[in-house]
Amino acid sequence: MTFINSKFIKSEYSDIAKVSQGQSVCFYGMVQNVRVTKWGGFVIVRKPEGLIQTVIQKDTSSIIDEEGRSIGINDISREMAITIHGTVNSANIKDKSVKYNTIEIEVSKIQVISRPSTTEVIDVNALKFSDDESVLRYKFDNRQVSLRNPKDMAIFRVSSTIAQSFAEYLISVGFTQIFTPKIVSEGAEGGANVFNMDYFGKQVYLAQSPQFYKQIGVGVYERVFEIAPAYRAEKHNTSRHLNEFISLDVEMGFIKGQEEVMELEMNLLRHIIASVNEKCSHELQLLEAQLPCLPENVPVYRLSEAHELLYNEQLTADHRGEDDMAPEEERAICKYAKEKFGSDFVFITHFPTEHRAFYAMNDPEDPTLTLSYDLLMCGIEITSGGQRIHKEEDYRKKMAERGMNPDNFKFYLDTFHNGMPPHGGFAIGLERITSFFLGISNVKEASLFPRDINRVAP
Amino acid sequence: MTFINSKFIKSEYSDIAKVSQGQSVCFYGMVQNVRVTKWGGFVIVRKPEGLIQTVIQKDTSSIIDEEGRSIGINDISREMAITIHGTVNSANIKDKSVKYNTIEIEVSKIQVISRPSTTEVIDVNALKFSDDESVLRYKFDNRQVSLRNPKDMAIFRVSSTIAQSFAEYLISVGFTQIFTPKIVSEGAEGGANVFNMDYFGKQVYLAQSPQFYKQIGVGVYERVFEIAPAYRAEKHNTSRHLNEFISLDVEMGFIKGQEEVMELEMNLLRHIIASVNEKCSHELQLLEAQLPCLPENVPVYRLSEAHELLYNEQLTADHRGEDDMAPEEERAICKYAKEKFGSDFVFITHFPTEHRAFYAMNDPEDPTLTLSYDLLMCGIEITSGGQRIHKEEDYRKKMAERGMNPDNFKFYLDTFHNGMPPHGGFAIGLERITSFFLGISNVKEASLFPRDINRVAP
Repeated sequence: MTFINSKFIKSEYSDIAKVSQGQSVCFYGMVQNVRVTKWGGFVIVRKPEGLIQTVIQKDTSSIIDEEGRSIGINDISREMAITIHGTVNSANIKDKSVKYNTIEIEVSKIQVISRPSTTEVIDVNALKFSDDESVLRYKFDNRQVSLRNPKDMAIFRVSSTIAQSFAEYLISVGFTQIFTPKIVSEGAEGGANVFNMDYFGKQVYLAQSPQFYKQIGVGVYERVFEIAPAYRAEKHNTSRHLNEFISLDVEMGFIKGQEEVMELEMNLLRHIIASVNEKCSHELQLLEAQLPCLPENVPVYRLSEAHELLYNEQLTADHRGEDDMAPEEERAICKYAKEKFGSDFVFITHFPTEHRAFYAMNDPEDPTLTLSYDLLMCGIEITSGGQRIHKEEDYRKKMAERGMNPDNFKFYLDTFHNGMPPHGGFAIGLERITSFFLGISNVKEASLFPRDINRVAP
Repeated sequence: MTFINSKFIKSEYSDIAKVSQGQSVCFYGMVQNVRVTKWGGFVIVRKPEGLIQTVIQKDTSSIIDEEGRSIGINDISREMAITIHGTVNSANIKDKSVKYNTIEIEVSKIQVISRPSTTEVIDVNALKFSDDESVLRYKFDNRQVSLRNPKDMAIFRVSSTIAQSFAEYLISVGFTQIFTPKIVSEGAEGGANVFNMDYFGKQVYLAQSPQFYKQIGVGVYERVFEIAPAYRAEKHNTSRHLNEFISLDVEMGFIKGQEEVMELEMNLLRHIIASVNEKCSHELQLLEAQLPCLPENVPVYRLSEAHELLYNEQLTADHRGEDDMAPEEERAICKYAKEKFGSDFVFITHFPTEHRAFYAMNDPEDPTLTLSYDLLMCGIEITSGGQRIHKEEDYRKKMAERGMNPDNFKFYLDTFHNGMPPHGGFAIGLERITSFFLGISNVKEASLFPRDINRVAP
């Protein structure tokens, strides 16, 4: 019998982020690359936050294999797991994928811990971003290893920072995190793109969104958020769709109007942008990305106003009277707002009732319109939101107008039957906002293991 | 066209947690209960963190309905959404479900914002914890409203604090959060309890755990964690099983042995327990729960040692030679450890190879055993963990021994083919640890919307 106690884990290792010149260090990592020279060479080591360069001198650096035998730099190969002992030297490294570009480690000893089965490992350093289908397919087919590419690593450091700062901000303004089921008996968003499944003889669905559950959550906790997968059975394979994605969901009670929801979303995005700028500066540099401008005042246009403005200013064709923004309008109004107000973000509000989900609240001043909005960023919609209906009778009326059977929404309607405050919310797709922030054209590049009509592995 | 800007949301409302006697306040909430007296009465208001009492005086308090008409306290009913203006008075409230038990609000004005469709709302105050199947069924059938019960609200405040402090601790020691797919082409844990689904003509599964993906994550980021749903097609409906649960998953690279994983888990649990004690003191009081003792030194027994000890000390029947701990042994060794070492936690290690998952690493000193562990808390297993195999050849060998087809694990094996450090990890079921911490006997009570063989709604 022994004890486990709480001495600090791995205290013998140095925190590379905090070392200074001349210091003796010990750390571990995977070999990202090796460059052999006449006098020795360089071993580039992968750390979670980026690469670090180590320098081997034939005369003074010893390299030891798993069995304790002395080996040479020629025996070091990519994707070995190693421990490095050495001294910090100053350096000036041009390679942008090297995070620690002002230092290098003069190696006294490298110890090999484990090695791949082959010396012909996938060369992750050679992987490029590309819209070419065959390049993407190769990367996704080999995702289990291609993620070891520094640029891919940077993408998912940014996306986890986005998710964490999303939670952090919402908790700071009184939200409660909830976890709701993804196996559901009722679809939330409707339509054909829902996955069915057999559940002990019953037909069930994978949740398209936590819409019903987050509204229920408002009746309990006033303000709730969720970070969880959502499912859309997209039959078209495009650069903008994923069949499984992480939905950042927000729902907020006791609002006086959808403007409060919009204001919350702006404050939230402001916090997320600041957090990513602060915590991921290396990642942004490596990906050559610049986060969008979110000024104090963000312009808001009603849909009809936007159509009118763009036509009058001769920025687009005539879309007046249309139910939604045309893609050319989304691009044009963002360009216009950037020039005029310095904002990469534009709100479009008051979409026609028939164009929005049944739970969207009608505008009391014009029931053909809803208190709903889209948020555009740099020409593309990144989120939809708005105020929801909170009275049972209003749901029943809208369901009757749409020919929906209220019996299919029993527990949902019961929530409103038992009392609900006015409320509204929105959802942001994590992969979508990550790819937009980073200027990545295919949203699948922002999913660790993307799912589309053709892909369920790895 | 207008602007949305970032003034602080709802600044007109008071933070009830920070008010002091004599202060004028304004806040909103749902009516949890009403008690009418001769002179007026009490309106108990629900806030996310607990209840607050307000006092109505017939002569001085005005109550206004949605249309601006003056009404009486008799017209106030449960689950109305209201805004309250008033003054803080000191009080001494015995009802434990009232969070703010040292103050009450002397009402000057209540404004009704919205109301249920019925005055006969479900009386959530009358709901009790119970192992009685019919009581549970009623609560779960009406979960959309029964969650408004203060004790249920407290449970999920604790569970979200557990999830957040889990993430917080791991980020502080260098872990990266990942989001991995739940639609998968290969099962991780094997066995019969897996949900199948049709995916555009292919058979796919709902992930039983992110095991393969978190191991892949270690090859990329050294240390990773995930908070996400996991699925088990449990055909038996018990108080210890859920078919959908939130799995708190950890995987850690560059370990020297499973002791490092165990040490990490202890430090993590220590942080979680401290966070819950700090942030959820009202919830713990309301639920009459006391968190477990986790001393500096936690005892560790090999399985064979534990069998031997319990038999020799005449604490259980003779289980020597058995493949796992018997339930009476789990209870007995926890009682023993509590008395002898003051620890509610006990590790059992070195389970037989054939009893553990194929990815468990064999003990080099005795390949019939694995470097794996169970963590017991107060008599029940709360988590399994251990060191994993990190060499492709060792996987192929184990798969051959078990008659597994390596072609079914192509991308998984390719991960090790391309090099992996030694690693290990563990998983904690969020609902399970929440119910154990709170002394709740049915794990379903710790799931917002539980899923079992009979239940997929609400």
